[in-house]
Amino acid sequence: MEAERTLGAEELTELGELAAQLRVDAIRCSTKAGSGHPTSSLSAADLLAVLISRHLRYQWTDPHCRANDHLIFSKGHASPLLYAVFKAAGAITDQELIETYRQFGSRLQGHPTPVLPWVDVATGSLGQGLPVGVGIALAGRHLDHLPFHVWALCGDSEMAEGSIWEALDKAGHYGLRNLTAIVDINRFGQRGPTELEWDLDTYRRRVEAFGCQALVVDGHDLVAIDEAFGRARQATGPTVVLARTVKGKGVPEVENQPGWHGKPLKPELAERAVAALGGVRQIRVATPRPEPVPAAAAPTGEPPTMPRYDKGAMVATRNAYGDALRALGSRPDVVALDGEVSDSTRADKFAEAYPDRFFEMFISEQQLVAAAVGLQVRGYRPFAATFAAFLSRAYDFIRMAGISQADIALSGSHSGVEIGADGPSQMGLEDLAALRAVQGSTVLYPSDAVSCAALVAQMVDRKGVNYLRTTRGKYPVLYDNEDAFPVGGSKLLRGGDDDDITLIGAGVTVHNCLAAADELAREGIKARVIDLYSVKPLDRDRLLDAVRATGGRLLVVEDHYPEGGLGSAVLESLADIPEPVRVTHLAVRGLPSSGTPTQLMEQAGIGVRAIVAAARAAEAPGR
Amino acid sequence: MEAERTLGAEELTELGELAAQLRVDAIRCSTKAGSGHPTSSLSAADLLAVLISRHLRYQWTDPHCRANDHLIFSKGHASPLLYAVFKAAGAITDQELIETYRQFGSRLQGHPTPVLPWVDVATGSLGQGLPVGVGIALAGRHLDHLPFHVWALCGDSEMAEGSIWEALDKAGHYGLRNLTAIVDINRFGQRGPTELEWDLDTYRRRVEAFGCQALVVDGHDLVAIDEAFGRARQATGPTVVLARTVKGKGVPEVENQPGWHGKPLKPELAERAVAALGGVRQIRVATPRPEPVPAAAAPTGEPPTMPRYDKGAMVATRNAYGDALRALGSRPDVVALDGEVSDSTRADKFAEAYPDRFFEMFISEQQLVAAAVGLQVRGYRPFAATFAAFLSRAYDFIRMAGISQADIALSGSHSGVEIGADGPSQMGLEDLAALRAVQGSTVLYPSDAVSCAALVAQMVDRKGVNYLRTTRGKYPVLYDNEDAFPVGGSKLLRGGDDDDITLIGAGVTVHNCLAAADELAREGIKARVIDLYSVKPLDRDRLLDAVRATGGRLLVVEDHYPEGGLGSAVLESLADIPEPVRVTHLAVRGLPSSGTPTQLMEQAGIGVRAIVAAARAAEAPGR
Repeated sequence: MEAERTLGAEELTELGELAAQLRVDAIRCSTKAGSGHPTSSLSAADLLAVLISRHLRYQWTDPHCRANDHLIFSKGHASPLLYAVFKAAGAITDQELIETYRQFGSRLQGHPTPVLPWVDVATGSLGQGLPVGVGIALAGRHLDHLPFHVWALCGDSEMAEGSIWEALDKAGHYGLRNLTAIVDINRFGQRGPTELEWDLDTYRRRVEAFGCQALVVDGHDLVAIDEAFGRARQATGPTVVLARTVKGKGVPEVENQPGWHGKPLKPELAERAVAALGGVRQIRVATPRPEPVPAAAAPTGEPPTMPRYDKGAMVATRNAYGDALRALGSRPDVVALDGEVSDSTRADKFAEAYPDRFFEMFISEQQLVAAAVGLQVRGYRPFAATFAAFLSRAYDFIRMAGISQADIALSGSHSGVEIGADGPSQMGLEDLAALRAVQGSTVLYPSDAVSCAALVAQMVDRKGVNYLRTTRGKYPVLYDNEDAFPVGGSKLLRGGDDDDITLIGAGVTVHNCLAAADELAREGIKARVIDLYSVKPLDRDRLLDAVRATGGRLLVVEDHYPEGGLGSAVLESLADIPEPVRVTHLAVRGLPSSGTPTQLMEQAGIGVRAIVAAARAAEAPGR
Repeated sequence: MEAERTLGAEELTELGELAAQLRVDAIRCSTKAGSGHPTSSLSAADLLAVLISRHLRYQWTDPHCRANDHLIFSKGHASPLLYAVFKAAGAITDQELIETYRQFGSRLQGHPTPVLPWVDVATGSLGQGLPVGVGIALAGRHLDHLPFHVWALCGDSEMAEGSIWEALDKAGHYGLRNLTAIVDINRFGQRGPTELEWDLDTYRRRVEAFGCQALVVDGHDLVAIDEAFGRARQATGPTVVLARTVKGKGVPEVENQPGWHGKPLKPELAERAVAALGGVRQIRVATPRPEPVPAAAAPTGEPPTMPRYDKGAMVATRNAYGDALRALGSRPDVVALDGEVSDSTRADKFAEAYPDRFFEMFISEQQLVAAAVGLQVRGYRPFAATFAAFLSRAYDFIRMAGISQADIALSGSHSGVEIGADGPSQMGLEDLAALRAVQGSTVLYPSDAVSCAALVAQMVDRKGVNYLRTTRGKYPVLYDNEDAFPVGGSKLLRGGDDDDITLIGAGVTVHNCLAAADELAREGIKARVIDLYSVKPLDRDRLLDAVRATGGRLLVVEDHYPEGGLGSAVLESLADIPEPVRVTHLAVRGLPSSGTPTQLMEQAGIGVRAIVAAARAAEAPGR
């Protein structure tokens, strides 16, 4: 590869011309749009010119080619540069770039999303592109065994995000020599200087301490950049190119000045700048093609033998998650990750059976979710698990996974006050609200091992962000192994033609509802019981039946705070029906403490006694 | 302070005895409870024995004394050790420790919370105690100017959380020489070895690269520990004591072995271990008292002169946030923080007026919220701002702030599709759901500058997590400066005795509702319009009036995903009323893109045209 490091005069001229075109186009499209981040694009134009001309191995006409390198703009606000790259590559036209950038209906949005075939994941929430790149590189190095390289362009501001350091740490830990972060150190953030400005040495020491090789360059020296990228590709571990750059480089009026973040150049200034940069060009770059690689092997593997459980046996749904996941491991595209609690989430069952497809992310939940998103970019079906409470640590990553339309499965164990003595810090009590509000998400909360396993089996091929909520304790198996549990469905566990009230639960509260129904029956109150295991989408037809059958009397019980969870899902679903509905909503209304599961559920008013009392009150004459 | 570093034989014996007592008590209470983390406590017992005997300056009888040092167990699961410390200090009795630990109703919960007067903040979600400690140390060094020191005991597993590095970075940036992290490097996490095990040198290099002084010690060498703590207190910058320890230290059967995380010793083993450690002791430690400091000055400062706006003037609520915050700055206890976007959130107005009370947290939203929590520990009233979307980055910190019952104000700007061309990554569309589901939270979403300023003025003294959602664009001022906007209230903007339907909005959709009402009036449909600026708590009475006045016909419009937001809040509030209610719910149901605010709101079906059409349909005969 020695040849790659020698840049002739002609090549340098060509690269300079390309860099000028990228600058010109970034200025033109943002000025036309009247918004965007040209100065953040100008600082990285030389880096990208060298990258796409000489190091990125990519077939622009076949963005899903499995041999392709991956290019991620972790600094998603530099979209004018990214889209200028797409034009230079011939992927989009000059007209599309200039006329549609940031316009309504355009695929060239303010920040990149996978609506564009050359974009793997949505970026724009800083500190996420690199962690996702770690997931892609994990796939390349430990699963695909292909020589593609992952290049992530980062801003210097985002180096203040802890998630960047989770990513570099994992890159080092997993020896991701196929990953290069390119940090565009232009020393200005949005409202002023960055924390470290041009203190390249501190960046270098941090990067090295986190297990990566630092390559410090002048980000406007084409030869130095070229050499650094060449070294990065040949390195024996993950690399970070620390590029000292000038924000607004190429436009003297805005170069290296504060107050220019996220501001397009006014048309007159833009015109002058474009002229000074040599005017509009239509250079078409010849990005190196990837080496041919073998086609993906046809999916092999036995059809999974899903676990079976005896009705009445005491099994925790988190165990069923582990059993089902291990069974699904017969599919070679299924991978699992955990946040150093796999003996609790029971992802350890998969880890023991398929150690090569299990990735320990230690206590870094942001990287846990980001790695899952990266793995699905490469076609894997990742299942990522931690405590339900700690998925809140990765909420921004889950939100962005929704915008990326990523297909991932998340499992949150230890939900609700049911966990008992560990106390509120360990209790997922807001996860249903948070996960329901993710674009395109599915939210599942099974009550027993059979339904849990059946739902896990469906998550593996389901689109979007799929969330499974599991329970710590053991509860009786309620269903037959042959029963079906479609996503969007529900189960009627008790019910006849003359029910007085409908009890609706999910997860652990289904068991409380059943016990309450038994007690109510002894008092002559007939309670219908619904297991609403699919919280999103919801079985509206089942609820409508119940409304009609029990005179609109519903009682919803959930081990979750009252806002946004199961009760809200039921209410949202029935919001506009003509029939009168009265919903009694039992949820965790105070701040819980320690205790036994039963004590805490009773205290929270979601236990058997509370359900019986509330049902009785709802049934009382004159209510 | 030379004397402090010399430990005589007698003192060493005493310290050894105290450490043995801490170990014995940690074992006893967890064995009695049948759960808990004794081995994680044993590894840090020597560190704590030295700390509380010779370095922590604390009045146990006066935990709120402003001269006190702060002790934070960032590794909250080591609660047996913390509570053993409380016993040794005479703060709790041996009986309370042994008989109530982790029991229902006890204040000695599985993980510490401020239900205990000696606990500043709830911990147990790893990687949070140290970032909160940074906030406390910021107060000490930059506001209080008092010599107290902050000691945060961290586990080695939690060093994998990015938030730890955000914290150390900010500790270095702000020169927090009054902060010491003590890392208990026992090399075992929950399910096996930690990522770095006993690689003390890598820890050292990371800590130093992040701007802190590393002090590497054998965590069971009392003399070395004592010397390190002495140096930490005298250091010129933040310090990190990297203590090589043995998990389970003192109990040979479990020492340095995997599989013992979070497991109490069985009674027989516990009995043997206690005997081997010399049996139960009742040593009472004499913790050094803090130097006397002057009493806090009586609050001075002018009463704030709140901003006033002209009705009909075009003002963005984010600007009103900045104006109101600057006005409140006349109170010396008001402080502000921002995540490097203060020119967008308009926290810059406060920063310009009160630079000494403004803390730039750069792009690290977790540390942004953690610092706010730390500042309120010291009695300040912090306002922390970033984009609404990026508060999702700190969701676990906000969740824990709720459990800590911390009094903080959060402002999320750029909510909803209203932001326009930047695209979905920048749009807060799940924040109402997420923030409503935080224990004890308040959620406010004003439509105009007057109501926004009035609400900010109330946030300053309001308990719990207070969230203000602001809007990017400018909209007309709707209210008089004299109007009152109590939290929990609402405003009736249109309405008479014979309204046909009620339109309910908050924030930007209030303006859309008003325009729709005007158009509907032209068609002969009388629409009542409610500004539900207080999303939590909600003005139920106003809604009940509307239900009765408009025959149960409600139309809720929100710039938020459909799950868990304003619509759910309305539905939850009316869930159990006898009157029939039909709620038409307009919300952002697809994945948004770029465009103008009007284009995006119309596309999402929350614009004027969509409201008019939906109201017409709701009014149609035979619906």
